[in-house]
Amino acid sequence: MTDALSPQPTASPAPLPATAGDVLTAELSGQAAAFLRTLPPVLAGPEDQADGLLTALRRLDGALYAFEPLVEADWAGQLRAELGWLRELLLREPSCARQLARLLGALDSLAGTAASGRPPGDPRPDATGMLAGHPGAAKARALLDRQLSTARSRAHTSALGELRSARLHALADRMALLTGEVPLTAAAGAPAGEALLPYADRALRSLAEAARSLPLPRAGTPYNGDTRHRLPAATADAAAVPDADAALDADDAPWVLVRVLAGRARCVLEVCGPLLGGWAAGTAARLAALDQVLDRHQEAAAAAGAAASAARTPRITPATAYVLGVLHTDQRLEVEAARYAFGRRWSELAGRVR
Amino acid sequence: MTDALSPQPTASPAPLPATAGDVLTAELSGQAAAFLRTLPPVLAGPEDQADGLLTALRRLDGALYAFEPLVEADWAGQLRAELGWLRELLLREPSCARQLARLLGALDSLAGTAASGRPPGDPRPDATGMLAGHPGAAKARALLDRQLSTARSRAHTSALGELRSARLHALADRMALLTGEVPLTAAAGAPAGEALLPYADRALRSLAEAARSLPLPRAGTPYNGDTRHRLPAATADAAAVPDADAALDADDAPWVLVRVLAGRARCVLEVCGPLLGGWAAGTAARLAALDQVLDRHQEAAAAAGAAASAARTPRITPATAYVLGVLHTDQRLEVEAARYAFGRRWSELAGRVR
Repeated sequence: MTDALSPQPTASPAPLPATAGDVLTAELSGQAAAFLRTLPPVLAGPEDQADGLLTALRRLDGALYAFEPLVEADWAGQLRAELGWLRELLLREPSCARQLARLLGALDSLAGTAASGRPPGDPRPDATGMLAGHPGAAKARALLDRQLSTARSRAHTSALGELRSARLHALADRMALLTGEVPLTAAAGAPAGEALLPYADRALRSLAEAARSLPLPRAGTPYNGDTRHRLPAATADAAAVPDADAALDADDAPWVLVRVLAGRARCVLEVCGPLLGGWAAGTAARLAALDQVLDRHQEAAAAAGAAASAARTPRITPATAYVLGVLHTDQRLEVEAARYAFGRRWSELAGRVR
Repeated sequence: MTDALSPQPTASPAPLPATAGDVLTAELSGQAAAFLRTLPPVLAGPEDQADGLLTALRRLDGALYAFEPLVEADWAGQLRAELGWLRELLLREPSCARQLARLLGALDSLAGTAASGRPPGDPRPDATGMLAGHPGAAKARALLDRQLSTARSRAHTSALGELRSARLHALADRMALLTGEVPLTAAAGAPAGEALLPYADRALRSLAEAARSLPLPRAGTPYNGDTRHRLPAATADAAAVPDADAALDADDAPWVLVRVLAGRARCVLEVCGPLLGGWAAGTAARLAALDQVLDRHQEAAAAAGAAASAARTPRITPATAYVLGVLHTDQRLEVEAARYAFGRRWSELAGRVR
């Protein structure tokens, strides 16, 4: 038995790094090592292994952006472009797969053909939804399945090709160099707190400012019709909005921007955590939860777009088109619901980030 | 100048009626007189003059139902059947008109063709919605306009015919008799408080019980997908639900029932007001507000049904069908929003009615 009061062997706590460059080097080289560790399984296997790699990409990009004046500008700019290329590449196929799963799930639920979970032989009728028994449901399902599966396998093929390219090798080489040395500027020689915290502050303020420009009072009222009905002209460009797709994209854009800024704020808090104490970790966790809500926002918007686009397929039947109209609206409603959820989470966060 | 402290000439307060029969006679003969007063303008003029007549019908039917054992049963049963016939007759045409206005309003808002209220010459683009620039919007508009206008003018013609019929004359004769004498049972001779209040209590308890069986915890979560997605099998009949329309009707039915019971509870509070004090008037006013929410529920459900039915018109284009699918979902969402609003209002009322 061990005496609970006697000193236990523990890892000695790491001393606070002295300069901003030390902190940034630890972060960037650590994430570069994570990149190199998580890349091989992605190259070898199924795409759903990419989470670790995507985290490394997010943290590298976020730190390079937020602390831009502390790292060599040309080098950081080129590296961020390559990180963005890989990120897009990794997300394309899963995005098609998630859109398809989301639309078929909604369709099954609306058509009452979702698995009910009841034991076989249960005499009660199956649960039914708004499209129960609708002859267009099966055709719409087949159409969406065909279109999004095609998009998915195209994304898969092109990703496979690009992942075998010299471009990825060059990026891996850059990462290997980064594990050894980070090209810093003279400003990175300043004490960590003094040099880093103003950037952390700037990242949080950018987020708060972008969030303030969202129509949160409207989004805070449930069933506000925000993403289906009249969109305020202010969200559109000065030029006339050509069509509904462009109008919806313009309406979604400020939310997409907030997601980007929330991701950067999270990176900054992760880097500056040791300087800021427990507050930073708590806020970063809340930002991660916010990211999930905004992910749902983006995914539902993409799925709505896919339904609208499928409805423009030539020679479909009116019944199929009707079901796609139902699905489009259903997914825009998910967008609206995500905005409502964002508003509630944001009001908890706003005190921490201003 | 009048001395403020000297006795002023005031109307002497009406003494509390002694028996249940007195109270019922006052209510029924008063409403019969209102019926006779409000009928001629409805016969002569536009249908939107029917509000007063509909109120009289509601109060007569509610009192006859709630205090059934105090009035002669056969007489009351026959009279309620005739009141119901007239009510249906009066509501049919306005219901078509309101469905049409609701659907075209939603369509204009979704297509961004609603009047923007901006001064002419304002260079900003017009507000746009989910269906902006959609080629099916104009066709769907024309189709709905044609179908619901046809239904409306059919309802108008048949109402005109029935309002000139001997059946209405006979009902007016019954009302004239009712202003003079109400056929009461022996039980109506009991003191008002003793004989009436148990029925008032029963009406309130029926309402509370029906409201408790509503899926209020689900409806209380915004964006719950209640009326679009999987409907619980429990709301459907034991027989398999044949199609989506029947499933939606089954899903709406408990809400329609609650509306009926809320209307009866309101009648009872109006009749028993003098026995119950200010509490009764406050509760009746809250029930009237609840009725408006449930009216919106019913109207949106009817409009959703009209959109779904229009989508079954042969030979429409896929673009038209798509727009009708959007409209159907949009209106089912209004149903869901009304349920959410009901849940909030009900929680304020539930303490008063249990």
